[in-house]
Amino acid sequence: MAELRKEPVTRMWVVTITDHPKGPSDYLSFKPPYRFHEPEGPCPFCPGNEPMTPPQTFSIGRDGGGWAVRVIPNKFPFFHIEGDFNRRPEGMYDLMEAVGAHEIVIKTPEHHQNLSTLETDQIGLILLAYRERLIDLEKDQRFQQFLMIKNYPGVFNRHPHSHLMALPVIPRRIDEEIWGTMDYYKRKERCIYCDIIKEEISLGKRVVLETAHFLVFSPFASRFPFETWIIPKAHSSDFHTIDKEKAEDLSVVIQSLFRRFYQLLSDPPYSLTFHTSPVQTRFHRPEYHWHIETRLRVGLREGFEWGTGFFVNPTPPEDAAAYLREVE
Amino acid sequence: MAELRKEPVTRMWVVTITDHPKGPSDYLSFKPPYRFHEPEGPCPFCPGNEPMTPPQTFSIGRDGGGWAVRVIPNKFPFFHIEGDFNRRPEGMYDLMEAVGAHEIVIKTPEHHQNLSTLETDQIGLILLAYRERLIDLEKDQRFQQFLMIKNYPGVFNRHPHSHLMALPVIPRRIDEEIWGTMDYYKRKERCIYCDIIKEEISLGKRVVLETAHFLVFSPFASRFPFETWIIPKAHSSDFHTIDKEKAEDLSVVIQSLFRRFYQLLSDPPYSLTFHTSPVQTRFHRPEYHWHIETRLRVGLREGFEWGTGFFVNPTPPEDAAAYLREVE
Repeated sequence: MAELRKEPVTRMWVVTITDHPKGPSDYLSFKPPYRFHEPEGPCPFCPGNEPMTPPQTFSIGRDGGGWAVRVIPNKFPFFHIEGDFNRRPEGMYDLMEAVGAHEIVIKTPEHHQNLSTLETDQIGLILLAYRERLIDLEKDQRFQQFLMIKNYPGVFNRHPHSHLMALPVIPRRIDEEIWGTMDYYKRKERCIYCDIIKEEISLGKRVVLETAHFLVFSPFASRFPFETWIIPKAHSSDFHTIDKEKAEDLSVVIQSLFRRFYQLLSDPPYSLTFHTSPVQTRFHRPEYHWHIETRLRVGLREGFEWGTGFFVNPTPPEDAAAYLREVE
Repeated sequence: MAELRKEPVTRMWVVTITDHPKGPSDYLSFKPPYRFHEPEGPCPFCPGNEPMTPPQTFSIGRDGGGWAVRVIPNKFPFFHIEGDFNRRPEGMYDLMEAVGAHEIVIKTPEHHQNLSTLETDQIGLILLAYRERLIDLEKDQRFQQFLMIKNYPGVFNRHPHSHLMALPVIPRRIDEEIWGTMDYYKRKERCIYCDIIKEEISLGKRVVLETAHFLVFSPFASRFPFETWIIPKAHSSDFHTIDKEKAEDLSVVIQSLFRRFYQLLSDPPYSLTFHTSPVQTRFHRPEYHWHIETRLRVGLREGFEWGTGFFVNPTPPEDAAAYLREVE
């Protein structure tokens, strides 16, 4: 089980795992030099090993039998689906049960793949799986925010998978983005992201690629080298309202971007997160503009940002975008 | 040179290095498995090699000759000391020159040391050097915030050193802490950190150690496994007003904590940051409470927090504190 604990000064919610907590010995093998692990024994995400996982919540079949994408509850979830929040004080502090959904999206039957090797059709099926799960999970009134997060390579298993979570709170950075979006809207009656899109297209120097429906660019104040955002050019607050044509376009964009990363930085580790409006009538923000943020986990400045929110980026986004544009 | 760029949605300032920017090839050797580097050739931080560094800004002599602690300007600074801010728009964006100070505190003449092996007298001299540099830099009205940051091991050189910076803006997390402190003060007319100290001492379960002047504890909503804060028990907004007696006590506390980390997690990599009030009359916040935050760089969850501000901690702080209390 897990708890959501509120940091009293900054009011940020943190998930604290209270069942099977990790002790010092669990960290001895997770220090630099970091190594990524493969599962011992058969991979539970590979076809034929489905009985090793909890029963699936969704899947997309493949021509000729079997599945192309499979969604399962996480065996070691940060959030548990049953129960109520039990919001309560503990002395001066605030906490609640970590009620939510935590699913794993197995992105392909093939163990050795990644976003730079997958075909666009397959990426399209993954996006469809996200969309269908979000439409289903949105019915549960307890959930305020969806997160889709991909880490490559996975820490415990390289088989391509991502995390899909439904949270009962809005995480800090999304909350800050919404605050900034609403504040800008009040002053201008325009979406700040729509303005950024116009600005970036007109300048061009931070654009990586542009398609009919999407812009890929390195943001002006990139926190990380090669930080890149993928954003729909037409205003839309919710990823899961994406239609078929746009999803197909997005598949092409994702494949192109990650092939560029692969070429340019020799198969770098990366993280990718979807930023989409909170759900439920009272949290939903139509002024918000959904997008994908990507970070390459290259360079080493860990100590600077975590403690103080002080980011130093040694690769200006204009340079990053130029390198990414020019990749063959 | 470097620029400070403001992220337009969340309004966070990011340092963008524009001279000697790094390109893709610079990152090829900085991917997992991470390796920490030693300088090629002689160590510029070792005694005898002083001519390899810029002229020192401060040093403390050692009985018998030479120096015990030496402070020098960083050869590759994030901030440049000369010039003016030149605050300006760039289209819809905001930027300014990264004017500030960026110094390196060489913490000992001995190359192979760390906070768990240094004597308390030496740690006391390091604290004194911080204090003296801050008192001097505070005279420059351009600076709003001091940061002292220690990463172990250093990325480019293991010789014990830390970064001391004077910033012309207040970084995001410090700003959030000040916002939270002021908001609490308005409601309660009390310091939130003073209340946390009382709460933690009374509960005891998250306390690692307590001395005459300092409390060391794992905070209720720890973001990281073994996250630990060192905080003065008496209210004080500014580290650099520390007196000799408290500095001596703090040296003992730091040594004790880092010896515990060393024993418990087998010489783990760590980061340590000082959180202290902004300076200059119009930014200074006497309601704030200075403290030190420490993070062990163990465990691997990088992809979760950066994108969304969503932290998951698999080691509850009560467990972390118990382990750290019980270390021999």
